[in-house]
Amino acid sequence: MESIKIAVIGGGSSYTPELVEGLLAEAETLPVKEIWLVDIPEGDRKLQIMAALTKRMVEKSGKDIRIVATLDRRAAIQDASYVITQIRVGQLAMRRHDEYISIKHGVIGQETTGAGGFMKALRTIPVILSICKDIEELAPDAWLLNFTNPAGIVTEAVLKHSTVKVVGLCNNPINYYKRFAKTYDVTVDDVRINFIGINHLIWITDLYVKGQSHLNDILTGKSSTYEAANIPDFGWDLGFLQSLGAIPCGYHKYYYQTDTILEQQQLELERNETRADQVKKVEQELFELYQNPSLNEKPKALEQRGGAYYSEAAVQLIRDIHLNAQRVHTVNVRNNGAISCLPNDVCVEVNCVVENHQITPLQIKEPPPQIRGLLQVVKAYEELTVEAAVTGNEGIALQALTLHPLIPSAEKAKEILADMLAVNEPYLNWKTMSIQ
Amino acid sequence: MESIKIAVIGGGSSYTPELVEGLLAEAETLPVKEIWLVDIPEGDRKLQIMAALTKRMVEKSGKDIRIVATLDRRAAIQDASYVITQIRVGQLAMRRHDEYISIKHGVIGQETTGAGGFMKALRTIPVILSICKDIEELAPDAWLLNFTNPAGIVTEAVLKHSTVKVVGLCNNPINYYKRFAKTYDVTVDDVRINFIGINHLIWITDLYVKGQSHLNDILTGKSSTYEAANIPDFGWDLGFLQSLGAIPCGYHKYYYQTDTILEQQQLELERNETRADQVKKVEQELFELYQNPSLNEKPKALEQRGGAYYSEAAVQLIRDIHLNAQRVHTVNVRNNGAISCLPNDVCVEVNCVVENHQITPLQIKEPPPQIRGLLQVVKAYEELTVEAAVTGNEGIALQALTLHPLIPSAEKAKEILADMLAVNEPYLNWKTMSIQ
Amino acid sequence: MESIKIAVIGGGSSYTPELVEGLLAEAETLPVKEIWLVDIPEGDRKLQIMAALTKRMVEKSGKDIRIVATLDRRAAIQDASYVITQIRVGQLAMRRHDEYISIKHGVIGQETTGAGGFMKALRTIPVILSICKDIEELAPDAWLLNFTNPAGIVTEAVLKHSTVKVVGLCNNPINYYKRFAKTYDVTVDDVRINFIGINHLIWITDLYVKGQSHLNDILTGKSSTYEAANIPDFGWDLGFLQSLGAIPCGYHKYYYQTDTILEQQQLELERNETRADQVKKVEQELFELYQNPSLNEKPKALEQRGGAYYSEAAVQLIRDIHLNAQRVHTVNVRNNGAISCLPNDVCVEVNCVVENHQITPLQIKEPPPQIRGLLQVVKAYEELTVEAAVTGNEGIALQALTLHPLIPSAEKAKEILADMLAVNEPYLNWKTMSIQ
Amino acid sequence: MESIKIAVIGGGSSYTPELVEGLLAEAETLPVKEIWLVDIPEGDRKLQIMAALTKRMVEKSGKDIRIVATLDRRAAIQDASYVITQIRVGQLAMRRHDEYISIKHGVIGQETTGAGGFMKALRTIPVILSICKDIEELAPDAWLLNFTNPAGIVTEAVLKHSTVKVVGLCNNPINYYKRFAKTYDVTVDDVRINFIGINHLIWITDLYVKGQSHLNDILTGKSSTYEAANIPDFGWDLGFLQSLGAIPCGYHKYYYQTDTILEQQQLELERNETRADQVKKVEQELFELYQNPSLNEKPKALEQRGGAYYSEAAVQLIRDIHLNAQRVHTVNVRNNGAISCLPNDVCVEVNCVVENHQITPLQIKEPPPQIRGLLQVVKAYEELTVEAAVTGNEGIALQALTLHPLIPSAEKAKEILADMLAVNEPYLNWKTMSIQ
Repeated sequence: MESIKIAVIGGGSSYTPELVEGLLAEAETLPVKEIWLVDIPEGDRKLQIMAALTKRMVEKSGKDIRIVATLDRRAAIQDASYVITQIRVGQLAMRRHDEYISIKHGVIGQETTGAGGFMKALRTIPVILSICKDIEELAPDAWLLNFTNPAGIVTEAVLKHSTVKVVGLCNNPINYYKRFAKTYDVTVDDVRINFIGINHLIWITDLYVKGQSHLNDILTGKSSTYEAANIPDFGWDLGFLQSLGAIPCGYHKYYYQTDTILEQQQLELERNETRADQVKKVEQELFELYQNPSLNEKPKALEQRGGAYYSEAAVQLIRDIHLNAQRVHTVNVRNNGAISCLPNDVCVEVNCVVENHQITPLQIKEPPPQIRGLLQVVKAYEELTVEAAVTGNEGIALQALTLHPLIPSAEKAKEILADMLAVNEPYLNWKTMSIQ
Repeated sequence: MESIKIAVIGGGSSYTPELVEGLLAEAETLPVKEIWLVDIPEGDRKLQIMAALTKRMVEKSGKDIRIVATLDRRAAIQDASYVITQIRVGQLAMRRHDEYISIKHGVIGQETTGAGGFMKALRTIPVILSICKDIEELAPDAWLLNFTNPAGIVTEAVLKHSTVKVVGLCNNPINYYKRFAKTYDVTVDDVRINFIGINHLIWITDLYVKGQSHLNDILTGKSSTYEAANIPDFGWDLGFLQSLGAIPCGYHKYYYQTDTILEQQQLELERNETRADQVKKVEQELFELYQNPSLNEKPKALEQRGGAYYSEAAVQLIRDIHLNAQRVHTVNVRNNGAISCLPNDVCVEVNCVVENHQITPLQIKEPPPQIRGLLQVVKAYEELTVEAAVTGNEGIALQALTLHPLIPSAEKAKEILADMLAVNEPYLNWKTMSIQ
Repeated sequence: MESIKIAVIGGGSSYTPELVEGLLAEAETLPVKEIWLVDIPEGDRKLQIMAALTKRMVEKSGKDIRIVATLDRRAAIQDASYVITQIRVGQLAMRRHDEYISIKHGVIGQETTGAGGFMKALRTIPVILSICKDIEELAPDAWLLNFTNPAGIVTEAVLKHSTVKVVGLCNNPINYYKRFAKTYDVTVDDVRINFIGINHLIWITDLYVKGQSHLNDILTGKSSTYEAANIPDFGWDLGFLQSLGAIPCGYHKYYYQTDTILEQQQLELERNETRADQVKKVEQELFELYQNPSLNEKPKALEQRGGAYYSEAAVQLIRDIHLNAQRVHTVNVRNNGAISCLPNDVCVEVNCVVENHQITPLQIKEPPPQIRGLLQVVKAYEELTVEAAVTGNEGIALQALTLHPLIPSAEKAKEILADMLAVNEPYLNWKTMSIQ
Repeated sequence: MESIKIAVIGGGSSYTPELVEGLLAEAETLPVKEIWLVDIPEGDRKLQIMAALTKRMVEKSGKDIRIVATLDRRAAIQDASYVITQIRVGQLAMRRHDEYISIKHGVIGQETTGAGGFMKALRTIPVILSICKDIEELAPDAWLLNFTNPAGIVTEAVLKHSTVKVVGLCNNPINYYKRFAKTYDVTVDDVRINFIGINHLIWITDLYVKGQSHLNDILTGKSSTYEAANIPDFGWDLGFLQSLGAIPCGYHKYYYQTDTILEQQQLELERNETRADQVKKVEQELFELYQNPSLNEKPKALEQRGGAYYSEAAVQLIRDIHLNAQRVHTVNVRNNGAISCLPNDVCVEVNCVVENHQITPLQIKEPPPQIRGLLQVVKAYEELTVEAAVTGNEGIALQALTLHPLIPSAEKAKEILADMLAVNEPYLNWKTMSIQ
């Protein structure tokens, strides 16, 4: 079995210890020899902290894995087996703008959904595609595991504009497995979930525990579903759930409970405590901890950061690709007809069979209109967002934002877009619109 | 050529003189022998006024057409060649509720779009389907021309739940032809329009005058498009139009200029002058006029009522069905793949070839995402609305309203639905939801 | 109204007088000013005969139309409004090979169907695409009317590999209209036919006369259908017709009555009297007639040649394009979803609305499996044939021929292909297969 | 883990020892408690022989499994977990007719392909659907594993006309895995195959060994593919394979090498040695062996019978359903969009993820036309065959047979059908055609 080199783009991220912990835990089945952590100059301090910490972790484990920290992205990618992208273009400062501009305009301000996710996508896609150029040249057989949000849109950009073998990953699906296994006191392997959707907009259309459907337990409130720690939880209306006929994911709250969440976001904004502010604080505390030279494991505090089981999902995926295990993962891939009410060439988040050479979606039954309609309109918004990012066409950007269900009108879309483009100017290289 | 009997359900409507005027004008080519005006007991007074007026109109024309006014719907339908439905279940009083409840909840209040159109559909579909039962029994070869709004949703209900040959008609398309003919100083026959969409949500993807495309004239503001008199007109942002790549219809303003229109509606509500209030006033004035025994033609004042060219569209359609003329009309029919991004069994408003025995849509090119996404989500809402109306399932009604792009959240949908169902209780026969 | 220049590629064809006769008959509505007849040097003699005859025809008519005969294709195409292709690459000598090689191998030998049509397509497509290059450059707004057989395959090649506005035309549909009008003693305008299919493989799924379906008259033998003069007629089994549920066209006999027709073809081959032989004789007689300097009209004898109403179909199509008449014609166009069980980008022969700027297919209902299966396999064969012709890939040619329902096996396909390629070598520029 | 009852319909089949051997081998993971062998009165002798032999096999194994032999089908099905159908309606005598009638008419005579498979389907489907009625009533949660040929058509009949959870199984796919594992000296788990197709008409579009594609090894003759022992093997033309771009299965020879195989079949018929004759002889020898009271294991001679690895495929499928193992099997299920060029409601043989509660196909990439065309036409034939069997409509039967690529014309189809219906009259309950 050949040895594995992993390149982590955005290696200075606070998530890195989680990833390295996971790789160490799978070291028996997964012959990782080198982990390259790469970052941009602005992230060098964090990168060095991460390199030091993860080296201590490797040392403690007694495994023979080499950690390399570098600012030379091409060196990191060269001959890698797996490239992992966990970057944040513009860092938390820009995320804060995404949230603040949105909320000030009276719409949801969130990292991946709505106007915030839209702006993050515009900043991020050019960088990801430039990474893909390097991979095409330096590691054409590598798998790219993209964790960078909005993961579905970013992965779609790669699928449409690159030849890199890419798969997008989110920790949402694994958290459902973990949650239901705990609820029913069974192993994760006893739980089977039918998903339909796109990243951060997936519905559970059925839930089986040891071969028996338990969907109605959730729809009738007999059991509760998983709710991500970083999304406000006001509970679900059971009449609504039953007529929906499926379990919505946490991010659906931005669509179904918009008023309530927006109200809370406006309060947070008044107190300068939006999610970006909170994460910034957590990050600072984490990096304090990480610098402690006696720390040689992932600190407990990382769990507050969100991203639970992120490492587990990633490492299992790498393992099953590497072992050609033909197991089922819920990941972001080219639709190719799996969801027949969406175009073939878009990115969907569905159950897939993972093999070394290909990741293949399972065919999904036609959803009812209440799922289909929302799924189609958000996906069309995502297609336009990818097109806007790749072409730098401000008109297409306006159409994307206008179409988004969380933006109430074209007028509002135009105002938000103007404010966002102004702040993001350093990260874009766009022409202005021909007609104002 | 066989003689024609026309049954007008809702014959007491103020539109009737327009229809009769049109039929008289086509009397040379269209051998109409009987026009039966039928209404419900509550509408008897208006019905008698209409009967008297239209008899005077016929007399003036010197044509041999018999006008019959009746409350016996089955007698009117018996052996009819064409049945026309122009009913308003619950009359203007209920329309007023549709508008007021919507606006009070902070959403667009409109007869056909959003929560108002939704509630009108729920009230109207059971009545239309009961009319269809009569047609199936008493005039199975008749064509049903449905003008009752929301025309697309109501027609879809008939297509899905009846064997009646139905076509839905709106005066929106004909107004575009008239407008562009005037703009370019050509005949209507020199104008060709490519439409895509559903009733009250159609886009013009190309416009040809004498074989030359003039779409860009509109998108760049060189010429202006048709704007219905009954929809506020704040102008279009040209940058928006160009990136849209198509001409939106008047009803698109509710989606693209939501804030501006809602603001105006809230002012109208404060003054008790919403559209329902205005129409009520116009109607009263019209019926005053209609009772004048010396009036023997359609009064000029009817034009303020909206519905311009309604008669012309209807009469031309009847004529071309009758003559088997194989001409193109823009009407509401079963999609059957014409718009491939929508289900086959839904109702769409598209260019069709009209024959005596069938009305066939022309194939339409794939729309870009900015059109596709909005079209798909609104159509999915319409499918759910038909299902809710036919099953009386309040849960499906909640899903329909939640999905509508003009309703900001499931919470808001639930509140609006509760208020609307309470007021509409006399017109529905619904079970309550199992879970509150 | 601008004046019209028509370029006829293959102007030396014996069909030319029919076309010119038609154009003269429509001269009131169609302002044709120039007809350019163009041919290759080998056809110069025929071309000169045609030029002389058609000039006499014009003179007799008294119309102001200029006839130009030329070997300079580019001059003929320059600024043409309509280009008509009626060429026969390799002339009748090659057609004879197509038939003889096929029949000798025990399969149907026919100009457009099976191995014969396949070989004709391979020879013809490169020439048509080179004509299209000229049109793209010299007359980019011209409509190309393709009559060259196999018209469906040739038109598909243009649709896929050129930007020319093309429509493929066959005299099969018009003959059905004429026949049924005669049968029911009505005008052609009283007849409405629902077609589904591709060129020379169309089914009539319904037939309306004055709005009443008469399909069952044919299926039960009460009336007979049109049978092309150039296809043997052994009658239809009525049980077969009824279970088919549609009227097959004449070319369907090659598929449904294969044995009987093949037997007859083998007899004809023994007597050196296949269709190519017969046509050759008719052509010689026709050109004898044509040279008669006193002849100034289309001779009666032309009708034996086949191609009845060819001129009428062509001239009506040109007229309706020119007049932007929005009338229905049955022609060969890009499918674009009209027949949903076939790919979007293939050529189909269906009812279309003809406008000056576009020709749009009407949406067609899903056919039953007995139609669908044959249609799909023959269309897939045609797609491969286009690909083989364009790429010169002998392997793809082998797959095309193997897939054809009239070729019993891959072994037989390989033998036929070898013989055909040998004889056609002067017309092709192919590499040999890498593996024998 | 609950204990398992298996009902084997057609338990007197000579395959039964293979199945029982497999179940004994998996007894550790699969808690089988009862195996009910059920047969019809005509098969009682064989059934008793099988019961005695399999009881000896169980006894030798020391496992606690009860063998029950019965003619009471309902008792066998009652509360079964798995029902296995391996019946042969009309036994080998009717199979002989299928082959002889076909070959005498000059077409391929084969148990599952062409006219033979067609007639077998007509006889078998009514019996299978009557078994399904029992399952629906007596064991509604049971999985039906159908091995009865033509397995794809029979399974499609169940999918369309029953609510039973059905999966169709063939030993063709497992043989490819075994073969390629042997060729490349790896385990079966190291081999991954991309299949597209329907039962007995599957193509291998890619073949991976340890993550590397080895498709070209086969297409260039570097390695050979699996060829079923019961299908003549004349080798593949490599030029043909390469232009096909996929590995055909053994049954493709009937389509691609028709002449050669038909010639051989005609020789066999002259010698009274068609496949039915051969199998009859093997069967007699097997039952001689089986009666030996000292035999307590599957005899080696069974392997000549064909059906290699049949038991292994079946037992692994039962195991993985039971264990909810989420592993990939290549089985016959409802298409549901997996092969997008086929209807949703037909049966396809594709890679599926097997779970306890559902078996889900993996999405398959669009095939090239050379695969698509043959697949579509044969599937359309199968749809008609199911319809003919269920409705007893002789006209649909005629259309089915006419459409089959191995039947040269409607005339021939009619003759074959008449002969076949005459002989099969005792097994059918059909009305005659209304028109002869």
